[in-house]
Amino acid sequence: MKFNRITIIGVGLIGGSIGLAVKKRRIAKEVVGVFRRNSTMKKALTKRAVDRATMNIREGVKGADIIIIASPVYSIPSLVHEAMRYAKEGAIITDVGSTKSWIMEEAARLKKPKNSISFVGSHPMAGSEHAGVEFAKYDLLEGSPCIVIKSKDTGGKALSKISGFWKSLGARVSVMTSREHDRAIALVSHLPHVVAFSLVSSVPLNILKYAAEGFKDTTRVASSDPKLWADIFLSNRKEVLKSARAFEASYKALVKALSAGSYRGVAKILGRAKRKRDKFIYGKAA
Amino acid sequence: MKFNRITIIGVGLIGGSIGLAVKKRRIAKEVVGVFRRNSTMKKALTKRAVDRATMNIREGVKGADIIIIASPVYSIPSLVHEAMRYAKEGAIITDVGSTKSWIMEEAARLKKPKNSISFVGSHPMAGSEHAGVEFAKYDLLEGSPCIVIKSKDTGGKALSKISGFWKSLGARVSVMTSREHDRAIALVSHLPHVVAFSLVSSVPLNILKYAAEGFKDTTRVASSDPKLWADIFLSNRKEVLKSARAFEASYKALVKALSAGSYRGVAKILGRAKRKRDKFIYGKAA
Repeated sequence: MKFNRITIIGVGLIGGSIGLAVKKRRIAKEVVGVFRRNSTMKKALTKRAVDRATMNIREGVKGADIIIIASPVYSIPSLVHEAMRYAKEGAIITDVGSTKSWIMEEAARLKKPKNSISFVGSHPMAGSEHAGVEFAKYDLLEGSPCIVIKSKDTGGKALSKISGFWKSLGARVSVMTSREHDRAIALVSHLPHVVAFSLVSSVPLNILKYAAEGFKDTTRVASSDPKLWADIFLSNRKEVLKSARAFEASYKALVKALSAGSYRGVAKILGRAKRKRDKFIYGKAA
Repeated sequence: MKFNRITIIGVGLIGGSIGLAVKKRRIAKEVVGVFRRNSTMKKALTKRAVDRATMNIREGVKGADIIIIASPVYSIPSLVHEAMRYAKEGAIITDVGSTKSWIMEEAARLKKPKNSISFVGSHPMAGSEHAGVEFAKYDLLEGSPCIVIKSKDTGGKALSKISGFWKSLGARVSVMTSREHDRAIALVSHLPHVVAFSLVSSVPLNILKYAAEGFKDTTRVASSDPKLWADIFLSNRKEVLKSARAFEASYKALVKALSAGSYRGVAKILGRAKRKRDKFIYGKAA
């Protein structure tokens, strides 16, 4: 066992999947879950996503080597703050929030009660449109990208420990600054959500009955939690708006070629996009 | 057996899946495939998607009760024309093209050699981003929507025979005019393709490595055949552009709320979209 105790604050889809993976891969002797709601606590225990459950953060955090905050973005800084108060010497706190600059800035403002405690921001890029521990699975992180944030406040040892932790769960770890993260993630995650929600908004319900697999997949993420995503969009507003401008440029070029009735123009744009996607998915242009 | 012989012209993903379904469900005594390429013919025979294969359209069409043209949109009218020349008395020709007004108009111009031969336009809405008979599967059409086109030239008997044929393969059949079809399909199929191709275009390749399942699903259809889709977009240009305007309105409303930093505004738009999608997918607001 690599760790004695790992505590997860917020045991939903992601937190629960981390718990299941830590237990499956025997990475810690004990996984403790900290809950806000009794009903979620019961579900998590039934699912064996955690070994021990509590609604008291002080009790949950006590003696943990790693503390993972897996709650909605806006709640993360204050939970980091609380966790720090009760964490043991040398404990490392991390999170799973989808935007990082805002969280890192807020966390940097916190006064640490013990100097040996570190906060390292993380973003394991796994999930689904479903929320809740009932959808958690032990292999959710396997093979998914996970970004770990380096900052001037992050010690090298804590950084490599957290990177190692995510790798031990099967994630593909990249280290970058919070700014690099927010820019990249705005493009590959936040923008697709903006587009998918807009796509659903633009089709009347009585027409949706003719939708097939293509529409379902293109809009899958639009079944995600609206509050969670409003929160993510707003906490990374500048980069999301920048990505939106990049999207508008591509979209307008395609619509323009189509308006002009240019088969060659349209086919060229589609061909370039297909080759790029195939290269990313299959590692080659198919 | 409902039919003696069914002929499929163009045995790719859709044509091959129709062949497999007809055989699996014992709907016709014989399935004949008409091919342009030797390599595809071999693959289709290996896969047993057809009982008999030919590269000669005259030979393939001979004696068929139903002739299904499952080739790219632009090639359909001329193949309808050729099929009519060799079809037997009372034969019904149908197609699987993704746009219908253009095909129906072209088909209406054809002079039938025999009055008892009918053409009924169809659009089974199944498929995937993969092309080719190697991806064909017998259950591709099961539970998918299939639109059958009524027009002033379509006889009621032929219409109900073709509707019955698709139903017998497990599809959920709706009957409508080609105009209604093209409007609905522009929204639920063509527009998601426009958006997905544009989304891929807007993300640099070196950033794509951070993309996870959300991005993959949202852009899955952007791995579709660019020529096939350029063709579809252009053959339904007016309706695709109209759908694009509907999308732009929804998209702009969301971007505007985000620019304004309005959590309530953003959450409201996302919530409405999620409820609509969930209603469509799960039959209720989840």
